Amino acid sequence: MTANDVEGAVAATRVISSESGSTAAATAPQTPPPPPYRPHPLGPITAAEITHSAKLIRASWPESVDCHFKAITLLEPAKAELIPYLTAERAGQSPLDIDRRAFVVYYLRRTHNLHEAVVNLTKNTVESNVKLGPFMHANADGEEIVAVEKALLSHPDVLAELAKLKLPPGTEVVSDPWIYGSDGLKTEKFYDDKRLMQCFLYMRDPLNSTEADSCHYAFPLPISPVLDAATLELIRIDILPTGLDEKVKPLAPWVPVKGNEYIPEAQTLRTDLKPLHVVQPEGPSFKVENYSEMGRLISWQKWDFKVGFNQREGMVLYDVHYDNKPLFYRLSLSDMSIPYADPRHPFHRKAAFDLGDAGAGIMANNLQLGCDCLGSIYYISAVLSGSNGEPINMPNVICVHEQDAGIGWKHTNYRTNRAVVVRNRELVLQTILTVSNYEYILSFVFNTAGDLTYEARATGILSTQPVDLDLTQTPHPYGTVVHPGVLGSFHQHFFSLRIDPMVGGHGNSIVYDEAVSIPRDPKLNPHGTGYTVQKTEIDTSGGYDLDTSKNRVFKIVNPAVRNTVNGAAVGYKVMAPPVQPILADKDSFHYKRAEFADRSIYVTRYAEGELYSGGLYTNQSRGGTGVRSWAERHDSLKAGDPVLWVQFGINHIPRVEDFPVMPVETLRVMLRPVNFFDRNPALDVPPSTQAVNCSVGLNPTLESSVNGLTLGGEDGKASQCCASHGGA
Amino acid sequence: MTANDVEGAVAATRVISSESGSTAAATAPQTPPPPPYRPHPLGPITAAEITHSAKLIRASWPESVDCHFKAITLLEPAKAELIPYLTAERAGQSPLDIDRRAFVVYYLRRTHNLHEAVVNLTKNTVESNVKLGPFMHANADGEEIVAVEKALLSHPDVLAELAKLKLPPGTEVVSDPWIYGSDGLKTEKFYDDKRLMQCFLYMRDPLNSTEADSCHYAFPLPISPVLDAATLELIRIDILPTGLDEKVKPLAPWVPVKGNEYIPEAQTLRTDLKPLHVVQPEGPSFKVENYSEMGRLISWQKWDFKVGFNQREGMVLYDVHYDNKPLFYRLSLSDMSIPYADPRHPFHRKAAFDLGDAGAGIMANNLQLGCDCLGSIYYISAVLSGSNGEPINMPNVICVHEQDAGIGWKHTNYRTNRAVVVRNRELVLQTILTVSNYEYILSFVFNTAGDLTYEARATGILSTQPVDLDLTQTPHPYGTVVHPGVLGSFHQHFFSLRIDPMVGGHGNSIVYDEAVSIPRDPKLNPHGTGYTVQKTEIDTSGGYDLDTSKNRVFKIVNPAVRNTVNGAAVGYKVMAPPVQPILADKDSFHYKRAEFADRSIYVTRYAEGELYSGGLYTNQSRGGTGVRSWAERHDSLKAGDPVLWVQFGINHIPRVEDFPVMPVETLRVMLRPVNFFDRNPALDVPPSTQAVNCSVGLNPTLESSVNGLTLGGEDGKASQCCASHGGA
Repeated sequence: MTANDVEGAVAATRVISSESGSTAAATAPQTPPPPPYRPHPLGPITAAEITHSAKLIRASWPESVDCHFKAITLLEPAKAELIPYLTAERAGQSPLDIDRRAFVVYYLRRTHNLHEAVVNLTKNTVESNVKLGPFMHANADGEEIVAVEKALLSHPDVLAELAKLKLPPGTEVVSDPWIYGSDGLKTEKFYDDKRLMQCFLYMRDPLNSTEADSCHYAFPLPISPVLDAATLELIRIDILPTGLDEKVKPLAPWVPVKGNEYIPEAQTLRTDLKPLHVVQPEGPSFKVENYSEMGRLISWQKWDFKVGFNQREGMVLYDVHYDNKPLFYRLSLSDMSIPYADPRHPFHRKAAFDLGDAGAGIMANNLQLGCDCLGSIYYISAVLSGSNGEPINMPNVICVHEQDAGIGWKHTNYRTNRAVVVRNRELVLQTILTVSNYEYILSFVFNTAGDLTYEARATGILSTQPVDLDLTQTPHPYGTVVHPGVLGSFHQHFFSLRIDPMVGGHGNSIVYDEAVSIPRDPKLNPHGTGYTVQKTEIDTSGGYDLDTSKNRVFKIVNPAVRNTVNGAAVGYKVMAPPVQPILADKDSFHYKRAEFADRSIYVTRYAEGELYSGGLYTNQSRGGTGVRSWAERHDSLKAGDPVLWVQFGINHIPRVEDFPVMPVETLRVMLRPVNFFDRNPALDVPPSTQAVNCSVGLNPTLESSVNGLTLGGEDGKASQCCASHGGA
Repeated sequence: MTANDVEGAVAATRVISSESGSTAAATAPQTPPPPPYRPHPLGPITAAEITHSAKLIRASWPESVDCHFKAITLLEPAKAELIPYLTAERAGQSPLDIDRRAFVVYYLRRTHNLHEAVVNLTKNTVESNVKLGPFMHANADGEEIVAVEKALLSHPDVLAELAKLKLPPGTEVVSDPWIYGSDGLKTEKFYDDKRLMQCFLYMRDPLNSTEADSCHYAFPLPISPVLDAATLELIRIDILPTGLDEKVKPLAPWVPVKGNEYIPEAQTLRTDLKPLHVVQPEGPSFKVENYSEMGRLISWQKWDFKVGFNQREGMVLYDVHYDNKPLFYRLSLSDMSIPYADPRHPFHRKAAFDLGDAGAGIMANNLQLGCDCLGSIYYISAVLSGSNGEPINMPNVICVHEQDAGIGWKHTNYRTNRAVVVRNRELVLQTILTVSNYEYILSFVFNTAGDLTYEARATGILSTQPVDLDLTQTPHPYGTVVHPGVLGSFHQHFFSLRIDPMVGGHGNSIVYDEAVSIPRDPKLNPHGTGYTVQKTEIDTSGGYDLDTSKNRVFKIVNPAVRNTVNGAAVGYKVMAPPVQPILADKDSFHYKRAEFADRSIYVTRYAEGELYSGGLYTNQSRGGTGVRSWAERHDSLKAGDPVLWVQFGINHIPRVEDFPVMPVETLRVMLRPVNFFDRNPALDVPPSTQAVNCSVGLNPTLESSVNGLTLGGEDGKASQCCASHGGA
C-alpha cells in the first residue's frame, strides 16, 4: 500500500435512501399498555417502549426485511421544551407533557445499510427514518461479536494459519474482537469504508486449557483475521510483527512459556487482611424515588438530581441542584478514545472509542453486593435494547452508597485548645464497564461541601500482543514486555466529560483565571512579592489548554447571579488533572477521529444533538464531526448557553505490575463552588464525635504510661460507645 | 525607605563565639537511668534524653546563664554508620551500637545569642557547642508567643492606637503572632537582622465576646505591632492599608459588622446525616511494635517501616520495605513555604515556613478517637522538648488505621461472565498540625498494590486582613472578600517532600521518561499514529520541572537490580501534581528564602545534615542555604546516592466558601512501583466477597420486578451475611 491509497477524511452524510423505510407506519402496532409511572421526558426508555419502538420500525418495512437493531434509546427533548418542564416540576406545578421519543439505529440485517429513525412514542408514529450515508457505522454488539468469533475460528484459512503454529493438542484459541480503526486505505484487501472487525487471537494456557477464566492475554498469537462485520466474510488475515521493527516473520511453531493467571484459585492468597465493614445502623442518609419507571431521583445532604442510564453513556445525571439551587442541567461521560502507540500494521488501527463503538451502558457490569461496593448499597437497574429489538434486563448497573472521606474541615483554637472537626461524607454513584479486556470504574461523587467529583478508575487487562521470546529482556520502542513473549503496548486514554451547566440558573459563562506576578514597582510592588489574578472571558466557542504555570482555572459562572457577600458572579470551578494531548499527528486518523483528545477544555454553544464529543457515530469514523468541529464554528457564547467539555486521561506506559490485571489508575475531575455560597457550605455538618462515629481504640493499656509520662495513647472515654462492635 | 536600605542576602555563618559554652562539661551530670528499651539509633529522643541534654548544656555555662531551649531533638547518625546497622538488624544479627546524639538549639534567654550544640548521650559529653552567626534565627515557640501577645496587648502605644478604633466596651482583642518574613530593610525602625514578630490584631465578635472560640478572623483590625522576640520590646506599630492600593488611612472608629462563627453551637446543624461506622470485627490487619522507647515499627500487608517523630518534621518514616525488599531509607515532609501575594507593607513580609519557623511536630494536634480518625485506631504519642529543657508530653500525635479505598482491580471475563474483584485496602498514618489560624492534615498512605502516597489536606482559617467595608463588593487585586470587611489574600502553599530512596537497595538513579511522537515515515510510522518513550538520566544534581505535555515521569531506579520479567532497572515512579512555581520574583526575599518553591523536582547528592529544603534555620532566613543551593553544586550522581525532593502545592485564591473555616483542599503524591515486581503485587489480595465484606442491600423487594422483567435490584444471597448489622 502507498500513500496514494489513503483517502482523505470524507465527511459522513445523512441521506434519505430509496431503500429507507417510510416514516409513517402502514399498519402501526397498538400502543403499549400505560406504564405504572407517569411518563417523564427524562425517564430512561422502558422495556415496553423498546419493544414498541422496534415494532414501529419493523412495521415500516416489508415483512421480509429483518432489522438488526443497534440502539433503541431515549431521544431527550429539546432544551427549549425541557427547561420549562423541569422548572414547573420543581415549582410543584403540573408541567405540560412532552412527547416521548425513541432514537433507533439499525441495520438491515447482514447488510451495511445503516438507518437512523425517530419514533414518537406518545403519538405512536415514526417521525423520521433515514438511511445514513457512507463512512457512518454503528456500534458493535454482543450478538455480532459472538458470531464473528465463531465464523473466524471455523474458517479454513484461519485454521490453516493457526496450524503453522503447531499449538499443543487441545489448545483453546480465543478471539478478542477489535473495532477496526479507520486508516483511509483503499485497495482490494485494505479498506475501511465497510464495517469491519479486526480480531486478535490468543490461546488459553495449554497447561490449563479447561479453565475458561484462564488469562489468555498471556498467550497472544501472531495472527489477526479481519472480517466483514455484516456478512462475516473473511477479508484477509494479518500476520503481526513480533520483533522491534515492522518486519513480519513467517509463522513458526509456538514455543512453550508459562501462564500468568489472575483468578484467585491460581494464587497463594494473603491470609492477614482482616475484614473491614461499613455499617450504617440507622440506615443510609439518601433517599431514592422513581421519577419515571426507570428513572431515579436521589436526594442526599441538600443535593438532588435525576439519574438516567442509556446504552451509550451509561449513567447520566440530570437537573442537579444543591439546596434547591440549580447547578447542572446534564452531566455525563461523553466519550472515550484510546489510541495505541505501535505504528506498525495492523496495530496502527487500534483506536477504541469505548462509548461510541460499544457503549458504557450496554457493557455495564451487574454489580454484586459486597463485591463492587462496600456498606449500605442501593442498586439501580436498567433496561436496554438488544439486537432483536427486545429489551435486555441490565440488573444493578449503578450502585449508590455513602462513604467516609476523611476529615472535611478542622480548626483547633490554640488559645483554648478546642478542636472542631467535621468529616467529609460522600455519596457515590458507581458504574463499571467491561470492554473486552478492559474495565472502567466510573463514579459521580457528591460531598457535604458542595463539591461534585467525576472519578474514573482504569483497570482490567492490557490488550496484549506477541513479542519474540528472545526480546523479552530488550527494551521495546512501542511497549513494555509484561510477561515472556507478551508486549503491552503504549496507549493513551482520553475521557471526555460533558458538562451542561446551569450554575445559579441558566445563562452561564465560561471564564478562566490566571495568577500573574506584578512587575516590580517602587509603589505597587517594592519587594517583588506581589501577584494578582487576571480573568479572561471565553466569548466564542473553542478549544483551550490547562496551564499550571499560570494556575489557569476554568470556571462556570453566572453573571446574572451575584454572591451575596462579595458580589462576584456565582460559579463553580473545574479542577481537572492535565493530560498529554494525543500524540498521533494532526493528519492521522487517530487525531481526526478523536475530536476531543487534543485539548483539555472545549467550550461550545449548546446545540441540540451535540452530546458526544467524538461524534454520533465513532465506529470507523473519519473525523469532521465532534466537539473540535463544533468549537470551530466560533459561535458566540454571549447568549449564555455554553457546554463545557473536560478532557482528562492517562498515557499508559505499561508496567510489569499492570499484568495480568492492572491495579486501578485513578483520575478525578472536581467541580467545586467558587463564590457560589455565602460561606463554607459544610459548616452545618455535625461535628465528628465518638458518640456518633463509634471508633475503636487499639492501644493496649500498658502503653498509657511510658517512662513516667502519661502518654494517653487511648482516650479513656473511647470504648464506651458502641462497645458491642467489639475490636481488637 | 528606599532600595538602598535593602541589604543583599547575606549567607549565614556558623562561628564559635567567645560567648560560646565549652564543649566539655566541667561537671557532667550523671547519666540517666538505663531506658526500658535498647537504644536504637533512629529512636526518637526520649524524655530522659531531653532532660539530660539540657542538663549537659546548662552545665557548660556558668550557673547564672539561663538557656531558652528551642529544640532538643535526635541527631540521626550518619548514613555510613546507619546503613550497616539497619542491614544487620534486618538480617537478625546484632548490630554494633551507634552513639545516640541530641541536636540542641538554644538562646541565652532574652538575647539574640543563638547556639547550636551536639550532645553525645552515649558518652555523656557535649561534642560541640557554638554560637551561630548573624541572620540565623531559631523557630518561635509557644512560651514566646504567649509572652509576645501579653506584652503587646498591655503596651501603652498599642493601646493608644486601639483606642482610636473606639471598639465597643468589653471588646476582646486577640493577637495572631506572625513570623517576620525577611525583607532586607535596614533603617532605625525597619530591620530584620534581629528576630522579630509581627502581630496581626483581631477582636472577638463584640456581640459574642465571652465566647473564647468566637472566630476573630471575621474581625481583623488595621493595627500590626512589631516586637523584638527576645526582649519583647515594641519596635513599631504598622498601620495596615485597607483600600485597593498601598495608601494607609488614619485609624477611624470601628463600624459594626456581623460575625461569622464556625463552632457548631452557632449553626443550625443538619439532622439527616446518618452515622457511618467502620468496624473490624477481627481487629486490625497491622502490628505495632516498639523499636525503641518512642519509636514504632509497623508492619502491614508486606510493608514494614519505622515511624519516628520530631519537633520539626513531625512524622518521619525510616527503612521502608515491602515484602522485605528495600524501598525508602527515609521519608518526610521536609519543608513548607506560604508566600502571600499582597505586595503592600507590611503584608509583603507574610511568608511562613511552618516547619522551620514553628515545627510540624511541636504543633501537632492531640488526635481524638472518633473525631480525627474513623474505625479501629492506634495512636502514637511523642515526647518533645520545651523551652525550659524539659520534655513535653505530646499524646496521640499520629493515628494509624486502615481504610477501604474502593476497588483495587477488577476484571470480568465477558465469555464466562465471571468477575474477579479485589478491594484496595489502605493503611493511613495521619498527623495534623495547627499553625495559629491554619491546619494541615498530613498522611502517609500505604496500599495493597505496593503504592505509597503522601497526602496533604489544607484546612483551617484564612489569615485575614481588614478591607474597607465599602469595598466589600469590589474585586480586590490581592485577595477575595470573604466576609464584609474581611479580605482573604491570595497566597501560595508549597510542600516539599524529601525522598531518600533505596529502591531495590542503595545505589539508585533518578531518570525521567517522556512520551514523544515518532515523525511520519513510510516505514516506521506510515499513518502518523506512533509514539515512543525516551529516557533521560539525571547525572548531576539540579532542579527539574514536570511537563505534562511530554508526559514527563520521574522515576527512582536501581540500575543494579533488574526486573526478573523484562530486565528493566527496578523502580518507583513519582506521580505528583504540577504546581505553579513561586510568583515572587527572583530577587525577592520570598523567592530566595523558599529554596524549593521554584521547581517541582530537585535532585541532590546525599549529604549529611541536608534534611530541610529551605535550610536548617528558616526563620528570617535570607536564602543561600537549602535545596536550590545544594543542587547548584552540580554534584555527580553517578555514585548512586540521590535524594529526591518533590514540591507540590496550591495557589490559594480564596473563595467565600473558604470562610470562616475552609473545606479541605487535598493534594497527593504517589510513589508507585514501575517494573519493580514481577506482576501485579495485589494479585494475592483475597477477592472482595459479601461473606467478608458484609454489605447491606437497601433495595426494597418491590423493586425486584418492574414491568414483568426481573430487575434483581438486590442479590438474593446478600443479607445472609452479618444480618445483625441491620440496615434500612
